[in-house]
Amino acid sequence: MNLATLRSLAFALVLPGIVQSTPGLHIDAGRLQQLLVDLSEFGKNPEGGVSRLAFSQADRDARAWLVDLMRSGGLEVWVDAAGNIHGRRGGSDPSLPIILFGSHIDSVPKGGNFDGNVGSMAALEVMLTLHAERAQTEHPLEMVVWAAEDSGKGLFGSRSATRGPDPGELELTNEEGLSVAERMRRLGLEPDIIDTARIRPEEYAAYLELHIEQGPVLFRRGVEIGVVEGIVGVQHFEVSVEGFANHAGTTPMEERRDALIAASRLIRAVREEVMAKPGSQVGNVGWVRVAPGAPNVVPGLVTMPIELRALDEDVLADMIARIRARAAAIAEEDKVSISIQRYSHTEPAPADTKLKELIESVAQEADFSTLRLPSGAGHDAQVLAKHGIPIGMIFVPSRDGISHSPKEWTDWVDCARGAEVLYRTIRALDNR
Amino acid sequence: MNLATLRSLAFALVLPGIVQSTPGLHIDAGRLQQLLVDLSEFGKNPEGGVSRLAFSQADRDARAWLVDLMRSGGLEVWVDAAGNIHGRRGGSDPSLPIILFGSHIDSVPKGGNFDGNVGSMAALEVMLTLHAERAQTEHPLEMVVWAAEDSGKGLFGSRSATRGPDPGELELTNEEGLSVAERMRRLGLEPDIIDTARIRPEEYAAYLELHIEQGPVLFRRGVEIGVVEGIVGVQHFEVSVEGFANHAGTTPMEERRDALIAASRLIRAVREEVMAKPGSQVGNVGWVRVAPGAPNVVPGLVTMPIELRALDEDVLADMIARIRARAAAIAEEDKVSISIQRYSHTEPAPADTKLKELIESVAQEADFSTLRLPSGAGHDAQVLAKHGIPIGMIFVPSRDGISHSPKEWTDWVDCARGAEVLYRTIRALDNR
Repeated sequence: MNLATLRSLAFALVLPGIVQSTPGLHIDAGRLQQLLVDLSEFGKNPEGGVSRLAFSQADRDARAWLVDLMRSGGLEVWVDAAGNIHGRRGGSDPSLPIILFGSHIDSVPKGGNFDGNVGSMAALEVMLTLHAERAQTEHPLEMVVWAAEDSGKGLFGSRSATRGPDPGELELTNEEGLSVAERMRRLGLEPDIIDTARIRPEEYAAYLELHIEQGPVLFRRGVEIGVVEGIVGVQHFEVSVEGFANHAGTTPMEERRDALIAASRLIRAVREEVMAKPGSQVGNVGWVRVAPGAPNVVPGLVTMPIELRALDEDVLADMIARIRARAAAIAEEDKVSISIQRYSHTEPAPADTKLKELIESVAQEADFSTLRLPSGAGHDAQVLAKHGIPIGMIFVPSRDGISHSPKEWTDWVDCARGAEVLYRTIRALDNR
Repeated sequence: MNLATLRSLAFALVLPGIVQSTPGLHIDAGRLQQLLVDLSEFGKNPEGGVSRLAFSQADRDARAWLVDLMRSGGLEVWVDAAGNIHGRRGGSDPSLPIILFGSHIDSVPKGGNFDGNVGSMAALEVMLTLHAERAQTEHPLEMVVWAAEDSGKGLFGSRSATRGPDPGELELTNEEGLSVAERMRRLGLEPDIIDTARIRPEEYAAYLELHIEQGPVLFRRGVEIGVVEGIVGVQHFEVSVEGFANHAGTTPMEERRDALIAASRLIRAVREEVMAKPGSQVGNVGWVRVAPGAPNVVPGLVTMPIELRALDEDVLADMIARIRARAAAIAEEDKVSISIQRYSHTEPAPADTKLKELIESVAQEADFSTLRLPSGAGHDAQVLAKHGIPIGMIFVPSRDGISHSPKEWTDWVDCARGAEVLYRTIRALDNR
């Protein structure tokens, strides 16, 4: 048990009688801040932020620290075969479905201190508050900290607990040549019986997740709480533009079939078609490769990806249809051929309508401003939604929208507001 | 002496009395074809074409074959310290300046059988014809085969014979780690006294070079002889477009400062500005690099080269000024910063006005169709022009404009027409 654990336990144990330390809040904003500060010690980088990669030593240490704290809050704690940490608090009616809530504590390399951490520490803070209040809910409550949300293919823990990992995923190796399974075994986990981690959707009333927005919308508009409409669907396409490579000194301009000129038109067409209709859908061309690729050769071949995201499958289908039409027109005008092939597809995961309304109403009761918005980034919640569990997500502002960076920042008061909304949503859901 | 040399010598020696073997031509079209076919054996590739890199074994063998043939044509032959092969034929008035003509026989890797070869073999064919004719010119005549035109920085032999090689150029290594100097020494050349290769411009009346067009203009228009207006100037610029990298899922379209969107506009602006005024000037963007370079990240930085070519410095200056203005407008509209830095500059080398007229008139007398056009590719002639020697260049058609490829092709009759125009230009210049 290290110093951070001792200090956090002191908060959890010494102050059990003090509730509503901040006026208007049930949760303890100071304790939440301390939890976040203490968590940020595990895998801390000299330049700020953390590198707490899933199943690393820093992750192992943080997980041990967390389990101690969860037990101190009176929870029944267990770690499943996939590495997800569960903490259960009994309800007065054990026949009622469980209210599940949580997030993750692993990070990307050189990540920040808020992505995943805010939702995980807020879940713990809710549990510590209920413990201090000696509250009795009707529904059983369960907090969960999903394993390996931000490493490898992402969302590993929640996928393992629902549809299972992808074929061969446990054998994928990291830069050190260690497979996922090997790294899990080092932490005492049991990848060979990972199927035992699966949860049955009918046992759960809802999954709630608080998270930083990782985008600039709430921050720019000065809104305190985001009510997430859902996690967007993502489609990736590989584009190939084929013209004809030629000597750039001797080929007259009129003779050229320049693949890059056509690709440039298409890159702009993607943006135009994404923005042609109102809505929060987005589209990106993130790189371009040009062959042969010399200053004095007219480009013969361009390859590039198109990424499209939207909350609605129909919006996605409409966007790509219009982009394909533009590509066909460009191909004809510029005498090139263009192929657009989809290579990945994640369906949108809408939030549950009643949970959205509940989050909105408890936030407004607490006098927090709210805004409905989609989540452009992926979250464990989308996996649970696909598993048939109603989901609700709460966003808090990210300064300048920066994430996956040591510069990631959410004001402490915003973290507290998010935790408070999580607390109130759980209580309201329990009483409904 | 190999079979090819024997066969070519047979042509040169056995048939000295047969001139005008093709009606209307002074030069011997069949002999020229045989010279080209024989030369193509040195460094021949199984898939067609040759890899006859400068100072390679194939180059060495071809050079030895060529020296034998030049001597058989009665020439005084010497190889200078830079590896240029010279063959002199005396004139009746040794005080008159020398008429110089030639090309090169080295190739790019996987090159074709016409680039350089046509001009070199035509120069030899002219000398063999004059020898067979027992002709007496007033001016001394000199054919030259420049070393290493198509390797390393290019134009090595002609630069060494005029302004000298670039600082450090002799120490540049190839893929095998051998420096230019080491490769030269293997051929018995003397890089340490390369300065002795320099020629004095006042000793030369003109430099004439026959070459394949390496572009499609003559071929497409069905014109037999190109009268080269000059070798275009080339300017290279490095462009850097700086926006802001962001999460492509969470950053709304209106918030983005996408460097690739701005770069795409600029790529098209380059083409538009190059084509905005009539003329043969060209411009190219040959590659694009995008950072960070992931499908799910909004591009933050794009770098790319702009290449501009024109016969006239004013046209080049006007083009880049208009491109800079477009870039400034794009930068402001798209909220990015754009820098455009010139990193290389080769001045245009105009052909001598009287030599152009002479080439044109002798070609028309021979009943060949002609067209004035610039050379978009570089040639040894541009180096000699900068050295103060009046230059004239003759182009023959390249099928489909293809060059630096095994598919490079010029019909034998076009090779013969080019050699005949070279012959007639030399005779006309001598008599002027």
